[in-house]
Amino acid sequence: MTSKQPLDYSQDPKHDSCQLIVRKDAPFNAEPCPVDLVKNYITPEKYFFCRNHGPLPDIREAEHTILVQGIGCDKPTYFNMKQIKQDYEKASVMMVMQCAGNRRDGLHKVKHTKGVIWGPGALGNAIYSGCRLRDILATVGVTTKIKNLTKLHVAFESVEQCEEDKCYGSSIPLSKALDEFGDVLLAYEMNHSTLTRDHGFPIRVVVPGYIGGRSVKYLKSITIQDYESMSYYQRRDYKILPESVSDEKQADAYWCKVPSIGEYNVQSYVCSPSDGIHDGAKSNQTVQGYALSGGGRCIQRVDVSGDDGKTWTTAQLHQPAAEGNNCRVWGWCLWSATIATKRNVRIVSRAVDSSGNVQQEYPVWNYRGVMNNSWRTVDSNSMEMSNI
Amino acid sequence: MTSKQPLDYSQDPKHDSCQLIVRKDAPFNAEPCPVDLVKNYITPEKYFFCRNHGPLPDIREAEHTILVQGIGCDKPTYFNMKQIKQDYEKASVMMVMQCAGNRRDGLHKVKHTKGVIWGPGALGNAIYSGCRLRDILATVGVTTKIKNLTKLHVAFESVEQCEEDKCYGSSIPLSKALDEFGDVLLAYEMNHSTLTRDHGFPIRVVVPGYIGGRSVKYLKSITIQDYESMSYYQRRDYKILPESVSDEKQADAYWCKVPSIGEYNVQSYVCSPSDGIHDGAKSNQTVQGYALSGGGRCIQRVDVSGDDGKTWTTAQLHQPAAEGNNCRVWGWCLWSATIATKRNVRIVSRAVDSSGNVQQEYPVWNYRGVMNNSWRTVDSNSMEMSNI
Repeated sequence: MTSKQPLDYSQDPKHDSCQLIVRKDAPFNAEPCPVDLVKNYITPEKYFFCRNHGPLPDIREAEHTILVQGIGCDKPTYFNMKQIKQDYEKASVMMVMQCAGNRRDGLHKVKHTKGVIWGPGALGNAIYSGCRLRDILATVGVTTKIKNLTKLHVAFESVEQCEEDKCYGSSIPLSKALDEFGDVLLAYEMNHSTLTRDHGFPIRVVVPGYIGGRSVKYLKSITIQDYESMSYYQRRDYKILPESVSDEKQADAYWCKVPSIGEYNVQSYVCSPSDGIHDGAKSNQTVQGYALSGGGRCIQRVDVSGDDGKTWTTAQLHQPAAEGNNCRVWGWCLWSATIATKRNVRIVSRAVDSSGNVQQEYPVWNYRGVMNNSWRTVDSNSMEMSNI
Repeated sequence: MTSKQPLDYSQDPKHDSCQLIVRKDAPFNAEPCPVDLVKNYITPEKYFFCRNHGPLPDIREAEHTILVQGIGCDKPTYFNMKQIKQDYEKASVMMVMQCAGNRRDGLHKVKHTKGVIWGPGALGNAIYSGCRLRDILATVGVTTKIKNLTKLHVAFESVEQCEEDKCYGSSIPLSKALDEFGDVLLAYEMNHSTLTRDHGFPIRVVVPGYIGGRSVKYLKSITIQDYESMSYYQRRDYKILPESVSDEKQADAYWCKVPSIGEYNVQSYVCSPSDGIHDGAKSNQTVQGYALSGGGRCIQRVDVSGDDGKTWTTAQLHQPAAEGNNCRVWGWCLWSATIATKRNVRIVSRAVDSSGNVQQEYPVWNYRGVMNNSWRTVDSNSMEMSNI
């Protein structure tokens, strides 16, 4: 982090009537209550988490352009919003946007982590619409015929000025961008409405199956290069450091050795009852939650336990996109089950994805607190058990 | 299973000098010792597991043809081996072939499972060479432009007569077959030598990142259809049934509800010392093993513990294919670590794949005993601990 002028948040939109739990005011970071998350299969904006690294840009669409350049491009080319909307087929994708730090609180209870202390609400399921990134790349001459495809990356830069770097930036493998089943879009709509400033107006990248950090908002440039983005957010953040690394100084030696996260892992959470525990024994407790997995893997089963994992009930799944053996499922799965609960005993869920990956029982701690997908934890002072 | 004549195994090749542990004679099923597996990054055939469902076909290459037919095909078309070898570009892929039942023994210790009781050796890492399936499909007119692509499947049938069905058969999504990064081959070589009868001579499918059961040997037909293969091995086998299903009768109601396995899950195993335990305390025990994950996900970290999971050491990884940020890594990772061990205390490993999936501590039992990826278990009579 270099010394620089403090950033100015005075022009941020007001969030006075916000129905989210604010985790940080400036930059604005907020998430919904778990019970609100499972009310809708498509998450409405009022319940959609907001993740920012600096003041929210206030961009005039008519003046906004995106520069596309780099390896394999015929020449550096600017695209304006009118071209993008009129000259390219509009495509839509339903997908989960999930922050890599979702559920960081579970790891932070184990030991101090670095980052916004998110609960389980740093995700939402939305329909994004825009042009396909690979259609834009084809215009400048970049297709799967490019040499050394598997060694190339697409780096995105944002208008957003940030606390940790001059602007937000990130990258994805070029093969993901060009994959005809990859569904990477430059989106200008969310849930059939124009993007709001909170979500990247006028245009953002959406990368289905990947952590939200790769879906760069307020997009200003796209560069094909033979290395990952040099941005702080690609190089020194969003990586799963080994458990032995527990402070900034130790981390210094590891950032370059550990891969950046792309796809996220298998995940589920008990959202209702929201505290994951019941204060009385109940024979017919309805339990609801979400489940998801990265890379287009759908959820094949969610097991729910009212006795801290001793016995399990198979949940009913609601995951319409998985019908018809769709090969890439980017949307989430909402589930419910009716189980017996015991007084002050943890209610947990355990998802199995289409590749047979399953959630680990205990948190595997990492300094940045990312990719926590253990069974849900509860506040230990409300528990009678000692094993969490 | 229909009543039929017993199959004739008299023409099977002799395996007298076989260096594998034979799990079943007829059909022939055998796997290497764990310590042999980690001797070579590319597994030589003498240490490569053999998986059969019936007598080994004895095919004359010059007379062998493959029929390609079904939705989107201009007309049913036969290909002979000469055409396949001469008219199509030869491609190679290094990949793990892993049986879905690898490590079934760990689940079988929990409760009875159905199937060959494999140890941890039902996998190997090989270089397969042949023509690309999508090149063959393009010849008959099937490309990604086909209507309803995501609802279509490619079904394979084998010459192999089987115990459970008239012949071996299986299918994969058409999108996997056509994916230009999917690397699905019709292979006629393994490790730069002509396929042997044990491994599918004269030609087999290889589906990188998928369970071995989809890589159909002795291939005789390819059919594009709008449903999965009707074969026993697609419909009533290789599925992760819920824990509550514990016999054939209960399973009857579940086969049609549970998805068939495609990609495998994150996996690792302590191969040396081979019993996963040491009879004396040692401060510098070298431990070796393998790790892998399905769908092209590479291994980002393997943690090794000499005290049954209380403390962990990060292993050194040998996974050359992961260099250069290769987007699809089909080969495995061999790893080693030097750790302190205690007398009669379990040595375990825990792999984290590039999507952040991690192995579950305890086995999640299923009737067919597939996709076991818990931390390794050891024979309880050699353990001093009670928690496994």
